[in-house]
Amino acid sequence: MQFSVQTSSRTQMIDVTSQVRDVVAESGIRDGLVHVYSMHTTGAITINENADPAVTVDILSCINRVIPWDDHFKHMEGNSAAHIKVSLFGPSEIIPLENGRLVLGTWQGIYFCEFDGPRSRKVNVKIIQSMR
Amino acid sequence: MQFSVQTSSRTQMIDVTSQVRDVVAESGIRDGLVHVYSMHTTGAITINENADPAVTVDILSCINRVIPWDDHFKHMEGNSAAHIKVSLFGPSEIIPLENGRLVLGTWQGIYFCEFDGPRSRKVNVKIIQSMR
Amino acid sequence: MQFSVQTSSRTQMIDVTSQVRDVVAESGIRDGLVHVYSMHTTGAITINENADPAVTVDILSCINRVIPWDDHFKHMEGNSAAHIKVSLFGPSEIIPLENGRLVLGTWQGIYFCEFDGPRSRKVNVKIIQSMR
Repeated sequence: MQFSVQTSSRTQMIDVTSQVRDVVAESGIRDGLVHVYSMHTTGAITINENADPAVTVDILSCINRVIPWDDHFKHMEGNSAAHIKVSLFGPSEIIPLENGRLVLGTWQGIYFCEFDGPRSRKVNVKIIQSMR
Repeated sequence: MQFSVQTSSRTQMIDVTSQVRDVVAESGIRDGLVHVYSMHTTGAITINENADPAVTVDILSCINRVIPWDDHFKHMEGNSAAHIKVSLFGPSEIIPLENGRLVLGTWQGIYFCEFDGPRSRKVNVKIIQSMR
Repeated sequence: MQFSVQTSSRTQMIDVTSQVRDVVAESGIRDGLVHVYSMHTTGAITINENADPAVTVDILSCINRVIPWDDHFKHMEGNSAAHIKVSLFGPSEIIPLENGRLVLGTWQGIYFCEFDGPRSRKVNVKIIQSMR
């Protein structure tokens, strides 16, 4: 199953927890592992706090300082900083599924991380069921 | 299955390989994938060397230099550096399971990474069995 | 299943997508999750662009600047920078498998990342089949 994410700025973290929950509910699977996967080399998936919006602002400003956009890169397309951030954040996350619910800690939400937007993005969700 | 980890300083890497092995043994599953998952947004899971303790000292001192604790962050709780490190290290790792044993290289151990301690933490372990 | 990778410089990204595809084809499994895993603490797995070779050059030069090789580390073996990069890039990636094909975006390739070469490396591939 896939869903789309429309981003609106160059770097952005978008909470996709509810979209992942919808895919899980539709699948009917109640126990297993849920793989959430970015189909892109300049957009990542991460899990982080979804309570105070300042957290994602801080995460993006910090990573943009550590990996500046324009740093004498050779790739002609000019978006090497985005590629590097994807390798650091990673293209996917796995969340346990138990009794039909994502096993997320109190403050954990699932995010699509845009590092070269704005763009239209695709996220693939695949659920592997536990055997009983 | 979950187990607890009690950390004792702000940043710390604690070897949890034996706890993961205990959960695997209890499950009776001998072949599949083992998902080790931090239920927190300021604590991560990683796999790294478990021979020379200087390695984890170096890993922490380096990441603490790249991502300083106090860097004009906006999040009022003041622990944004911890949140960023979790997105970089990642909240989970997957280890293959074959013939009842974790497939770990000679020097690989599984670590809980504390980035905003000391705290009491929970680690979720879920095993997906291979079909035969 | 395991395959070997021979690296030829200290830091290097080697495209292993075709080796992973070979393991998948040999398994006969057509639907599930594919876990690609480095058995080493100084070599990682990542997914990134496989079109313009300048991208991997930029990724390596950037991470080598952020994490310099010689940074007053304590680990006597002298390769702490490599250990840190593995925790940042991560030792494994998971790719969905559908209809016998890896679900990779247009530009996505699977890479072994050498951070302390040249060496001979082992990559473990494990496939978990979806139930029907």
